[in-house]
Amino acid sequence: MTTKQQYDQYKTTMQKIADVKYSNALLQWDQETYMPTGAANVRARQLATLSEIAHEMSTTANLGDLLTDLLSKDDLSAEEKFNVKQSHEDYFKQKKYTSVFVRELSEATSAAFNNWVKARNEDDFSLFENDLNKLIELKLQEADLLGYQNHPYNALLNEYDKGATVAQNDLLFEALKKGLIPIVEKIKAQPQVNDDFLKQHFPKDQQWQLGIEVLKIMGYDFTTGRQDIAAHPFTINFGSTDVRVTTRIDENDFSNMLFSCIHEGGHALYEQGLLDENYGLPMGEYSSLVVHESQSRLWENHMGKSLEFWQHYYLELVKRFPKQLQQVDVNSFYKGINKVIPSLIRTEADEVTYHFHVMIRYGIEKLLLTKQIKAKDIPAIWNELYKNLLGVIVPSNANGCLQDVHWSHGSFGYFSTYSMGTMMAAQLFQSFENQYESNNEYNYENKIRKILFWLRENVHIFGKAKNTNELCISISGENLNVRYLLDYLTKKYLAHP
Amino acid sequence: MTTKQQYDQYKTTMQKIADVKYSNALLQWDQETYMPTGAANVRARQLATLSEIAHEMSTTANLGDLLTDLLSKDDLSAEEKFNVKQSHEDYFKQKKYTSVFVRELSEATSAAFNNWVKARNEDDFSLFENDLNKLIELKLQEADLLGYQNHPYNALLNEYDKGATVAQNDLLFEALKKGLIPIVEKIKAQPQVNDDFLKQHFPKDQQWQLGIEVLKIMGYDFTTGRQDIAAHPFTINFGSTDVRVTTRIDENDFSNMLFSCIHEGGHALYEQGLLDENYGLPMGEYSSLVVHESQSRLWENHMGKSLEFWQHYYLELVKRFPKQLQQVDVNSFYKGINKVIPSLIRTEADEVTYHFHVMIRYGIEKLLLTKQIKAKDIPAIWNELYKNLLGVIVPSNANGCLQDVHWSHGSFGYFSTYSMGTMMAAQLFQSFENQYESNNEYNYENKIRKILFWLRENVHIFGKAKNTNELCISISGENLNVRYLLDYLTKKYLAHP
Repeated sequence: MTTKQQYDQYKTTMQKIADVKYSNALLQWDQETYMPTGAANVRARQLATLSEIAHEMSTTANLGDLLTDLLSKDDLSAEEKFNVKQSHEDYFKQKKYTSVFVRELSEATSAAFNNWVKARNEDDFSLFENDLNKLIELKLQEADLLGYQNHPYNALLNEYDKGATVAQNDLLFEALKKGLIPIVEKIKAQPQVNDDFLKQHFPKDQQWQLGIEVLKIMGYDFTTGRQDIAAHPFTINFGSTDVRVTTRIDENDFSNMLFSCIHEGGHALYEQGLLDENYGLPMGEYSSLVVHESQSRLWENHMGKSLEFWQHYYLELVKRFPKQLQQVDVNSFYKGINKVIPSLIRTEADEVTYHFHVMIRYGIEKLLLTKQIKAKDIPAIWNELYKNLLGVIVPSNANGCLQDVHWSHGSFGYFSTYSMGTMMAAQLFQSFENQYESNNEYNYENKIRKILFWLRENVHIFGKAKNTNELCISISGENLNVRYLLDYLTKKYLAHP
Repeated sequence: MTTKQQYDQYKTTMQKIADVKYSNALLQWDQETYMPTGAANVRARQLATLSEIAHEMSTTANLGDLLTDLLSKDDLSAEEKFNVKQSHEDYFKQKKYTSVFVRELSEATSAAFNNWVKARNEDDFSLFENDLNKLIELKLQEADLLGYQNHPYNALLNEYDKGATVAQNDLLFEALKKGLIPIVEKIKAQPQVNDDFLKQHFPKDQQWQLGIEVLKIMGYDFTTGRQDIAAHPFTINFGSTDVRVTTRIDENDFSNMLFSCIHEGGHALYEQGLLDENYGLPMGEYSSLVVHESQSRLWENHMGKSLEFWQHYYLELVKRFPKQLQQVDVNSFYKGINKVIPSLIRTEADEVTYHFHVMIRYGIEKLLLTKQIKAKDIPAIWNELYKNLLGVIVPSNANGCLQDVHWSHGSFGYFSTYSMGTMMAAQLFQSFENQYESNNEYNYENKIRKILFWLRENVHIFGKAKNTNELCISISGENLNVRYLLDYLTKKYLAHP
């Protein structure tokens, strides 16, 4: 066989594996949007079977031989070489898992998800405790399977951001905390911001229409996407030609839908920006969850929560909601949506105190994974940390340690990507601003188009070919760091009080 | 291994195959309901991959050996024996297909479906012609793979109704035609029925609510089902705990949604009536498409289009649509929804002339599969047959030979099950009536509950364990025949003119 024939065979295999993984993703999307409740058990086994099949297809001896063969070829293009190298690495990682383990983990997370929903609805942590212990056990087994240096958590962090370590995360979180505390203190000393107008009644249908409109303004392509309602907003895709967002609508909390919609839109633009020709290949996959989060946070915070955006769009918004907003001027609106106040719920937190939520979860995960605590200890520690770090009294586990879905998915090591991604967003956005300001006459619509184009060119098209730090360095000349985020927050909150 | 262990292993394998098939079905459901248009190509390959995987899993040497082994065991229950026997037969049938053929057929039908949609929208048959020729070629290959006696069409008919033959179908259609023609003639001589009130404006949302309500009245369980909008109403399931219906709403044609909703509801009740414990096993699958259609037609015609039903429900209907219906009494409504008039569109045809639509398609399929005609000849023959058999001038291919989706799915041999199923519905319903009348005091709500219970007990729970004729004989003491349908239509349309 020629190298080209071998490469084609590799590509065909990878595309078939992707077909199964994306079918699995559709089962998940459906589970969270439209699936009738009575189907939960059967869906769990369908998910487990597709996971098992994808794993088996990813670990055949044929594929291993083919990859090893291709790795030694010198007549591949740079992109082809990258794909082969990455797939070769993934192959040997996948080989560390048994099919039995893959199925067990899939079934355990389905059960945990269902029990988490119950526990949260009934505000009864004990309904979720056993599942959580079981998942921690499985994730520790996974860390052992994958291997790690220094800390089992490193193996899991690595799954979401290749190369991430506890040591590095600790340093970044420490610097972030040190930078944020004085900012919070200074904001506290400012006059209280009024955001009562956001808590008026905003009818569901009108909010929905606004969300669709905002996604269109961002450049989200509805011929390769759609929005639906889900209990917990998320973005999911089945290739770059089918990238779906979900949202939720609280009729009495306007900013909830609006910013979750922009956030998910940012994730979705990334997936729509991956090249269809790379379907199933590493070049066709997102770089890391940190990079993914940098996209959602860039759109949510640096665009959607900017004064510029609302100077451009506020008149239209007031036209849609005259009763609620005609007494509110654009500056008051801007201040309201950016009000800083320590709160209970991470997804509704402001840009400044948000990171304390993440740090609390990161700290608890470290304790769980080093067996210093068990699931049953979480509520007490959670509540204690919220009191100490945020000054917030947690009234119930439903609004406390049960608020987020991630642990029920077995996603330990995921949360820290939220803060790292937010840092990266600030780093990217400043780099864009530097170039944009020097090149363009100001026009906000033009700026939106430009930033999407810039992200496509500098981030999206590379897929996995550049990791988090490589992207940061190639774009900003620096490693991922906290400075850009702290500068941005300082300028936003302290320069014009 | 003990027999029990072997049987468990067989069951596990079958359940995993079902997981893949039902995942494939979810991809289809999504394609017809919510999928963004830009995803068509990628979805086609995802469907093809899952088809290929299901086929590979269904034809492993291990499964063959296991089935052959189990077939000789005498310590299996009757049900277990049936499952093994049926799976053994299916296994050797599946072995006749190559994976390449399965993938090719799946990809060809996806392409054909997309081109059929285009051809129909643009009223341009030529856009679909090549796909159709390709599919006919593939279906003839399939007939050769499967083997047949006398007629290649027999192999395809057999896929939808085991044991069905051209010879038998010809006889039944001949008898049906002979019986229907004088009925149509006599109806023509009756005073014209007024159904203008059905063509008023019935708002979409209210129609939707009515559809949901009617499904509930029938006993459709929304905890294991849901309804969505699709261009072409269908029922699909992913196990008996997730059985979904779709409908379409024409605001200016009230009966369209109403009866398609009841029709699909009938299909769905059958799938919800299969036992969850038989998931993946032959006992957990519907008997044949004829039996499936008997369920939908029984609910649509014998219940939904009966005077009894509307005597029970008409006041409620008028309450929902007072403006449109308050001037219409229940007898006029009943006559209107049962108006007999030859028409263009099969799915909107009345109970009497409906079967001519089916016969036309059946005749054309025979010509195609014996290569007496090619795809390009269809429009002319179609239009000629509509003129001769129904007296209807076909104004466009979009409303003529492009109206139905089936051929784009490669479903040749499917249409005749519509008439056979309708015959069976009449046969079943009369058997129920005989028992019901002698056992029960009259109460329509009670009757609805009873008939569902009766269908569950006499049809649903058997799954594949009884074929079409076995069910007909066990319930009515007779083979499937035309007498019941003709008697029913005579009584309905000619006894009380």
